[in-house]
Amino acid sequence: MDMEARGHSEHPQALRLWLRMLTLTQLVEKQVRTELRAQFETTLPRFDLMAQLERNPDGLKMNELSRRMMVTGGNVTGITDQLVNEGLVERVEVAGDRRAYRVRLTPRGRSLFGDMARQHENWIVAAFDGLSSSEVDALHRLLGKVKAHYKDTALETT
Amino acid sequence: MDMEARGHSEHPQALRLWLRMLTLTQLVEKQVRTELRAQFETTLPRFDLMAQLERNPDGLKMNELSRRMMVTGGNVTGITDQLVNEGLVERVEVAGDRRAYRVRLTPRGRSLFGDMARQHENWIVAAFDGLSSSEVDALHRLLGKVKAHYKDTALETT
Repeated sequence: MDMEARGHSEHPQALRLWLRMLTLTQLVEKQVRTELRAQFETTLPRFDLMAQLERNPDGLKMNELSRRMMVTGGNVTGITDQLVNEGLVERVEVAGDRRAYRVRLTPRGRSLFGDMARQHENWIVAAFDGLSSSEVDALHRLLGKVKAHYKDTALETT
Repeated sequence: MDMEARGHSEHPQALRLWLRMLTLTQLVEKQVRTELRAQFETTLPRFDLMAQLERNPDGLKMNELSRRMMVTGGNVTGITDQLVNEGLVERVEVAGDRRAYRVRLTPRGRSLFGDMARQHENWIVAAFDGLSSSEVDALHRLLGKVKAHYKDTALETT
């Protein structure tokens, strides 16, 4: 679980920072996957798909859902089929387009997702409780600064 | 590319921090994958495998290599075979064990990895150059504090 090997021999400050951030992210993500499986017998792609639907109560078309799931990967169609079979997600017709449909959470899916989201929140709060409140704020602000600069740079070069 | 959806409606401070860290890590990782492909026609698992071998000049047995590659995943045997075929990695016998072998970088592999590692370093330095030197230090220190606490907690609960 340690990405230090990616480092070049000189290891400048930014590279050490990146490797630490990557290692920590992987640690937390791994724990989330473990807890999701242990407590809910589910996976991170399933959780993320349900999270997208929870934010879109009217449902999403499959192409919209796929785009939003790009990061997590996983087989969006396959996962949707599973969740439909389990009664957590349903397909609804799109008015005026016979071939299209949207998928959305069922009431049971919404309720289960609520339970999972509360637990997920607890795991994350626990992961960061080595920091004081002001340290959490400082970290959030510093990462925000990196992200803002990153987006500006990405826009410049594309 | 935004993991915000994983958040629960109340979005406490730590959860917002985590989602920002996750989004940023994925942004940087995605760029590294893109650049590795564009500039070196290679992948992150191949880069990580070579990085592990670069740190172990005497080579690694396959089981040692697999253990170190756990995070990145990928087919360690398949990647090793590819790199051997390309003359970047070689298999060497283990003295006293006819069935075992170690893999290590060839001189050409070491030279190519050096080029990749230097470029990788440049991409990472660029990713964080929105921060001052003291901000990079602060971020490194705060993440270190989270990581140290995280490890302590993990030890307690296992």
